[in-house]
Amino acid sequence: MPRIVQKYGGTSVGDVERIKKVAERIKAVRDEGNELVVVVSARAGVTNELLARAQAVCTLPSGRELDQLLAIGEQETIALTAMALNGIGVPAVSYTGAQAGIFTDRVHTKAKIKTINSKPIEKDLAAGKVVIVAGFQGINEEGQTTTLGRGGSDLSAIALAAAVKADRCEIYTDVDGVYTADPRVVKSARKLDEISYDEMLELASSGSKVMQSRSVEFAKKYGVVFEVRSSFNHNPGTIVKEEVAYMEQVVVRGVAVDKDQAKVLVSNIVDKPGSAAKVFRTLADANIIVDMIVQNVGRQGVANLTFTVPKPDVAAAVRVLEPALKELGGGEISMDPKIAKLSVVGVGMKTHSGTAANLFQALAQAGINIGLISTSEIKISVVIDLDRADEAARVAHAAFKLDAS
Amino acid sequence: MPRIVQKYGGTSVGDVERIKKVAERIKAVRDEGNELVVVVSARAGVTNELLARAQAVCTLPSGRELDQLLAIGEQETIALTAMALNGIGVPAVSYTGAQAGIFTDRVHTKAKIKTINSKPIEKDLAAGKVVIVAGFQGINEEGQTTTLGRGGSDLSAIALAAAVKADRCEIYTDVDGVYTADPRVVKSARKLDEISYDEMLELASSGSKVMQSRSVEFAKKYGVVFEVRSSFNHNPGTIVKEEVAYMEQVVVRGVAVDKDQAKVLVSNIVDKPGSAAKVFRTLADANIIVDMIVQNVGRQGVANLTFTVPKPDVAAAVRVLEPALKELGGGEISMDPKIAKLSVVGVGMKTHSGTAANLFQALAQAGINIGLISTSEIKISVVIDLDRADEAARVAHAAFKLDAS
Repeated sequence: MPRIVQKYGGTSVGDVERIKKVAERIKAVRDEGNELVVVVSARAGVTNELLARAQAVCTLPSGRELDQLLAIGEQETIALTAMALNGIGVPAVSYTGAQAGIFTDRVHTKAKIKTINSKPIEKDLAAGKVVIVAGFQGINEEGQTTTLGRGGSDLSAIALAAAVKADRCEIYTDVDGVYTADPRVVKSARKLDEISYDEMLELASSGSKVMQSRSVEFAKKYGVVFEVRSSFNHNPGTIVKEEVAYMEQVVVRGVAVDKDQAKVLVSNIVDKPGSAAKVFRTLADANIIVDMIVQNVGRQGVANLTFTVPKPDVAAAVRVLEPALKELGGGEISMDPKIAKLSVVGVGMKTHSGTAANLFQALAQAGINIGLISTSEIKISVVIDLDRADEAARVAHAAFKLDAS
Repeated sequence: MPRIVQKYGGTSVGDVERIKKVAERIKAVRDEGNELVVVVSARAGVTNELLARAQAVCTLPSGRELDQLLAIGEQETIALTAMALNGIGVPAVSYTGAQAGIFTDRVHTKAKIKTINSKPIEKDLAAGKVVIVAGFQGINEEGQTTTLGRGGSDLSAIALAAAVKADRCEIYTDVDGVYTADPRVVKSARKLDEISYDEMLELASSGSKVMQSRSVEFAKKYGVVFEVRSSFNHNPGTIVKEEVAYMEQVVVRGVAVDKDQAKVLVSNIVDKPGSAAKVFRTLADANIIVDMIVQNVGRQGVANLTFTVPKPDVAAAVRVLEPALKELGGGEISMDPKIAKLSVVGVGMKTHSGTAANLFQALAQAGINIGLISTSEIKISVVIDLDRADEAARVAHAAFKLDAS
């Protein structure tokens, strides 16, 4: 019997009516003769409610207690989803993360999955039951509740799909799939039928909000093929899988824009071995993630470093860098929050040349200036003015002939 | 170091402000040099909210899923209570029923505690932490969440007090302790400093709502001395313990009124061996709990049975008895919901005579008619008219000189 893992996000199980609709969908898939493991998130909004209560009793709650508290969000939706299925005649049982044997490391609020003991789930599947599992949560070796951090429910679904050797894994969300660009910005954007893990990863890290990178990385590592699709209609979604030869026919798969970065320029630092290392070590120690980096040597003996950081971190970056520059013997810091990062992604770049040139040319023709440039094997990113970002996305989308044909 | 188990009910942890007040109380007791295990209930009202959501997705939810759902109520309050303690500088950790090693049988929604593995709790106590445990819930041997039914959090506290060999067990509630009568009815009622398990049990089964019998039975079985007191003030409460000799000096400890019973009269049934058994077996099979029973033989060859059942069950009692009477060869059923049960309780009755006569005489002088009578070693109960019940309580209270001196 084919075995399917489905995951429904917080909007899909946002209230009792939606939970009943999800139950109907599950029943339909089961009636077609499939075994089902279903991962659900907490209903949308409940995490914020719980965090507000936590804040009201303690300004800095411990990770352990936060996890204990936040885990109740999914515990509610698994029980209600199982009940809704029982109510329409489908045998179903709910599992918390701990009951599902999802063992994690000890890092509270952003734990990593270590192993899954799927024996209890296998037993209920063999008994003909639909198994409903709480996403986002697990248990550590000391029996404490842990949560997996942002995108944790997707990760639960993909890890379970690997553990129970599912034939399919379906990630239900509020969008139809992965698009060639954000359809709200680029009207002619098309939904992709398939995309490779690497392309999906580059899109995720480039501001496409469909899924967190860690879930895609996990899927790639364990070879879990999954489909991103909408829980509000029955349209086919986008299948994310290992790259196959024909994918390379397409040079650019999609265009992504990230408006959440800010640019930092560190100028006139002494150009000696270890200067750049000192700067980036300082940022790393402050848990600030640096994205694009360019270094150039200016007038004799001094260097300039330009890089991007998440906008909320830019003030902290300046604060920690000032003393570091003093130690290095001088340098100035300036920053620009009004930037955006435009990326074009495609595995075809590996075997096609001229992609960067084509992108730069298209932007130049539209009069859009390029700041930083960074490239990977399958991605080209450029920093542009924030207020030209949407226009740049449309220009790039058209230049690489991604518009609906 | 003295070890104390405290239990706070749903009103005491009803919102974040009250949780912070509870945390202050706990801190004060800890600062006096005590080890603390604290059992908390779900906040008042949350169980009804969750049940309403369950009803909205399924008219008859399974016990397993109900337990999974209801358990989140306490999981919220344990995390918030631990956080509130951390917020005022007290090291504290929360435990779900499962994490606290509270193993139960497999009967969902009214599980019985089988064993408690208190090793993890002992470890945290040894590390100087206050341990906060979710009341009302446990785990069965298959790893499923169970709940303990009505009064379950009191039971959790008393069972934990036995398991960790606590020096004291304090049950915090919204009343000051156990009174000689309901103070809302009998203005001169006094709070008792001490009461024996047996007296407490008889009061509980006689309509005094302070605690469920099962918790008191458990405390008696394991010799757990506990105190019932208010979380809204610092008054000493009532200590419940094994009977000691001086308790017998007092003939009547308290007066209780139960207005939740109805009287059923089964008349003119054939008086043959097995008739009464058939009637009560029928009621037992329908899960109807019968309280007071009187049988008398009427005119030749027929018998009358009178008994009380909980008011909500009276219609069901009539329904199941009608076919049973046909099988027995005849009989009529009538019922009277407008009754109350008045009980006087005291271990002193064992060694004093005339208590029943004194009660009957006092009621007779007040013109209150007595229906059924039943007695145990330490209790006398009578059925009276519902609309004389409060008056009867005051009369009995005065007759046995329970009024505040």
